[in-house]
Amino acid sequence: MVILGIDPGLAHTGWGVVETRGSLCRARAYGCIETDSATPVDARLGAIFREIARVISRYEPSAVAIEKIYFGQNAKSAIATAQARGAALAACSVAGCPVGEYAPAEIKQSVTGAGSADKFQMTFMVRRLLALDHDPRPDHAADALAAAICHAHLFATTALMGERVHGSHAVALVETAGSRASEGSLP
Amino acid sequence: MVILGIDPGLAHTGWGVVETRGSLCRARAYGCIETDSATPVDARLGAIFREIARVISRYEPSAVAIEKIYFGQNAKSAIATAQARGAALAACSVAGCPVGEYAPAEIKQSVTGAGSADKFQMTFMVRRLLALDHDPRPDHAADALAAAICHAHLFATTALMGERVHGSHAVALVETAGSRASEGSLP
Repeated sequence: MVILGIDPGLAHTGWGVVETRGSLCRARAYGCIETDSATPVDARLGAIFREIARVISRYEPSAVAIEKIYFGQNAKSAIATAQARGAALAACSVAGCPVGEYAPAEIKQSVTGAGSADKFQMTFMVRRLLALDHDPRPDHAADALAAAICHAHLFATTALMGERVHGSHAVALVETAGSRASEGSLP
Repeated sequence: MVILGIDPGLAHTGWGVVETRGSLCRARAYGCIETDSATPVDARLGAIFREIARVISRYEPSAVAIEKIYFGQNAKSAIATAQARGAALAACSVAGCPVGEYAPAEIKQSVTGAGSADKFQMTFMVRRLLALDHDPRPDHAADALAAAICHAHLFATTALMGERVHGSHAVALVETAGSRASEGSLP
């Protein structure tokens, strides 16, 4: 199963593609769509739409995982994020890719075992679970990979019909993936 | 000049197409994209993207007019609107259609002469300026037509290089337009 995680933002939309076989996870590729604040907002949203469409076309995920929208941040920031999320989810829908939404605490719980994990813990566990030899950067890509891992764990748990699968059981299979300049290169 | 006005919303995205020649305005068509709250959010955003893309393909506007995002409403509502706006603006960008953003008060000022006009005044003036024989419904379509009229007035003002053009000078030319079930039928 190939899962695309997305961490939407108007300036930075992180994405990460994870492949699973049962409880095993491997990373295929990850990256970040950066848009310039000097560019009109419609062009920035168009870039997010097109790039997510390109990633879906290239890696053919069977599902997309994305964080539920977070109301705690300031209104201006939340609205910019929501617009980016709208463009990204429209691309998923147009590509016919089903979407799973997860609360931030659900993703943290799934990846680290603690719903209150900090960014350091999250990056550490994403790197460990996917056996990367470096921290996935930028943070937006790491957050996108975390969402994909969360979806993978949920899927594995469901598939095993009650047999509990913990994040720490996931063993990463490393694969070299071709990548654009803006994408993380995997060993 | 053909202008598409958009009033974005997750449940209701209004749209209206206005054609101008100098300070003259005529309505071509208008409608509302409705999505069901029982449908997953990505599918709702995909429907908004596809329908805006269809309207642009059918009426070939040279510009899109949209309200600037409004921070005054409650956070949940603003975030839903922002996601719909993201999907709609991504469709404009993918179609290569430039977008003008206007503050609510700018649109009201342009259509009624008063930045604090109420909904009744706005609907009355949109109907009058476009010589419609009925109020454009739903309100979301009327708001979309108002955004398009605002853009038309600004364009006419710019074109006349300093000669002031007021909303009340705009005379509507009525044209019959084919319309889908969800679109307003024009006399």
